[in-house]
Amino acid sequence: MALIVQKYGGTSVADLGRIRNVAKRVAKTRDAGNDVVVVLSAMAGETDRLIRLAHEASLNTPSLREYDALISTGEQVTVSILAMVLNAMGYRAMSLLGFQVRIMTDNAHSMARIMNIDTGVVTNALSEGTIVIVAGFQGVDENSNITTLGRGGSDTSAVAIAAALKADWCDIYTDVDGVYTTDPNVYKKARKLKKISYEEMLELASAGAKVLQHRAVELASNFRVPVYVKSSFNDDEGTLVTVEDSDMEKEVVSGVTCDKNQAKVMVVHVPDKPGIAAKLFTPLSDRGIIVDMIIQNASYEGFADLTFTVSKKDVPQVREIFDTVARETQASRVEFDENISKISIVGIGMKSHAGVASRMFSALARDGINIMMISTSEIKISCVIEEKYTELAVRVLHDAFKLEKERK
Amino acid sequence: MALIVQKYGGTSVADLGRIRNVAKRVAKTRDAGNDVVVVLSAMAGETDRLIRLAHEASLNTPSLREYDALISTGEQVTVSILAMVLNAMGYRAMSLLGFQVRIMTDNAHSMARIMNIDTGVVTNALSEGTIVIVAGFQGVDENSNITTLGRGGSDTSAVAIAAALKADWCDIYTDVDGVYTTDPNVYKKARKLKKISYEEMLELASAGAKVLQHRAVELASNFRVPVYVKSSFNDDEGTLVTVEDSDMEKEVVSGVTCDKNQAKVMVVHVPDKPGIAAKLFTPLSDRGIIVDMIIQNASYEGFADLTFTVSKKDVPQVREIFDTVARETQASRVEFDENISKISIVGIGMKSHAGVASRMFSALARDGINIMMISTSEIKISCVIEEKYTELAVRVLHDAFKLEKERK
Repeated sequence: MALIVQKYGGTSVADLGRIRNVAKRVAKTRDAGNDVVVVLSAMAGETDRLIRLAHEASLNTPSLREYDALISTGEQVTVSILAMVLNAMGYRAMSLLGFQVRIMTDNAHSMARIMNIDTGVVTNALSEGTIVIVAGFQGVDENSNITTLGRGGSDTSAVAIAAALKADWCDIYTDVDGVYTTDPNVYKKARKLKKISYEEMLELASAGAKVLQHRAVELASNFRVPVYVKSSFNDDEGTLVTVEDSDMEKEVVSGVTCDKNQAKVMVVHVPDKPGIAAKLFTPLSDRGIIVDMIIQNASYEGFADLTFTVSKKDVPQVREIFDTVARETQASRVEFDENISKISIVGIGMKSHAGVASRMFSALARDGINIMMISTSEIKISCVIEEKYTELAVRVLHDAFKLEKERK
Repeated sequence: MALIVQKYGGTSVADLGRIRNVAKRVAKTRDAGNDVVVVLSAMAGETDRLIRLAHEASLNTPSLREYDALISTGEQVTVSILAMVLNAMGYRAMSLLGFQVRIMTDNAHSMARIMNIDTGVVTNALSEGTIVIVAGFQGVDENSNITTLGRGGSDTSAVAIAAALKADWCDIYTDVDGVYTTDPNVYKKARKLKKISYEEMLELASAGAKVLQHRAVELASNFRVPVYVKSSFNDDEGTLVTVEDSDMEKEVVSGVTCDKNQAKVMVVHVPDKPGIAAKLFTPLSDRGIIVDMIIQNASYEGFADLTFTVSKKDVPQVREIFDTVARETQASRVEFDENISKISIVGIGMKSHAGVASRMFSALARDGINIMMISTSEIKISCVIEEKYTELAVRVLHDAFKLEKERK
């Protein structure tokens, strides 16, 4: 008998038939004697439809308060329908919206952060044997304005609710059945992991893996919520995301991931003086542009080259900003390269195993893949390579670290 | 400079193009220096779509709490879109849902009654020059459950908000441009009324005219809210629904209306004893079946016939109930007739003009239309006739009372 939070994503509730399947799964968990809180996304495609409508209505400058009021309807539809289906099956079930639970957020519309969750309404309902179905992705600010949490926000809702309720664990049902050593669509030898640490999951998420939202993993890690990533379309065992343990350290590398969404910007021949980097990057951060990898080569005759990566979609804005900034810093020119990708290996084991980086570089070199940029963290190494080698690099590294084989 | 509540129905907000038209109309009212509160319905067809979904999900027995949570999303979509459109046009505008205004209702889900409306949030926004856009049809009960007000509930929302805010008047924009002497689709000589009393409007609504929801007129009458019925598709003058005045009394009859939705039930040869009527009608009211006209003929040798009308959709239930009840009351049999319609004339002037009823009966008789039942109120006379004569009867009565001509 446990308290379980189950989150189902958009493809799991895409239509009434699938919602009925979710209901069966929820009912089974309840029948086993557990208290169940369900968190739902909107039907697949619905949020995108509403976002298009918002952009059309507002000539692409939606008031974000109204945008949130509009797009939060998607989850309101799925939670009330699931409650009706469960009621018709003879179960006590009730839907709760953000304002009804009192999922309190800041007022950063469209990307709000959860500040606090009242547990009173939910725990009362649970104590009466009711299955509680909470709308994901939404909350309210202190003035009762509806807010939303940004892309993938339902994962965050689920983990936050699990943390607030001190649930035994949180199941994240999605359209993949776990966390793999790499994307199975890229390499068929990809292997599903039984367990992965929060830390690795965070690095994988930031390196481009899309299984779990980054903030959801952060929250899970902060509050030590065990998270199972599972598929709602089968009964396969999923992947447990949890605290690091000795088993995990045996795995030098847990996963390989790639991100084709980056572009490389090189500022050539800038005077190597204090304050130059700030001059270059402050205008970018002011516009909300996230800079990922940054490298600066050794200075030669008082000048250096500075290279960094940004998201491909930000390239036009960076060009515009650097038209003036580059002149001010006396850089000789700025070069853009969008034909790149970032390839990363992640693993807790790197902390205690030497030679991981050189093994990565050698493997890439053997197949003639040139490395343009390198960045490392304690448990991740990322390389920028030519985009056309992306899939080859994934396979090469997967083989080099023997990821298809499970460690004992 | 006035405070005006404007309500737009489903056909007026059926798509983004029409919502833009609504925005222009609202903006014009605001530009003229008025404070504006807008109340919206869901896009035409959307509420029906959601109701079908609820029935499908729940195998036709939706939990009404969840039903309300689901169908209230329709209005949430239109109010946020209108706010976005107005914002993009450069106007301050904000949407408010039932729980945000605090439109407090009882907890009779799917047919809730408004108990109280907080005016604080709305008046604050108005004082800052903001156009306030309120979701019609919805409220919340004291436990923050979402409630809805039943069919046509947005009219009620608008009038209730106008009453709470002490607005100067309430515009109801709909797909007809006013109140007519009869349905223009039935008789092309139908004339639009400039003014009509609350009382007449109530009788017309209960007699089958569908321009304004009955409860909205009741509220308007109780709080003396002047209501203009107008079209959102043209700039024609509408009809003012207001307190009775001396002008109105000149009109003997203001309108003719028909209702094909009734069925006649005759309980034949029941013992004429005290308590029989109660025995017959209590089981009907227990099941929520509304009985409209009731007549009982003179008793003959201790037995009488009792005839009444109910909505056609209730006939199967009435049959089922009377299978046993008729036996208990020793009635010899029960006859049902669904091929009937109710035709009514309504007019404040009846109070002071004699001979209205006989003029009605003579006109019908002249064209061979047989009257099966008659009921009268102070300002309305209704007759049940054979259904096939409905349209003929409307034209005959419209001519008999010269409704095509305006009184001076």
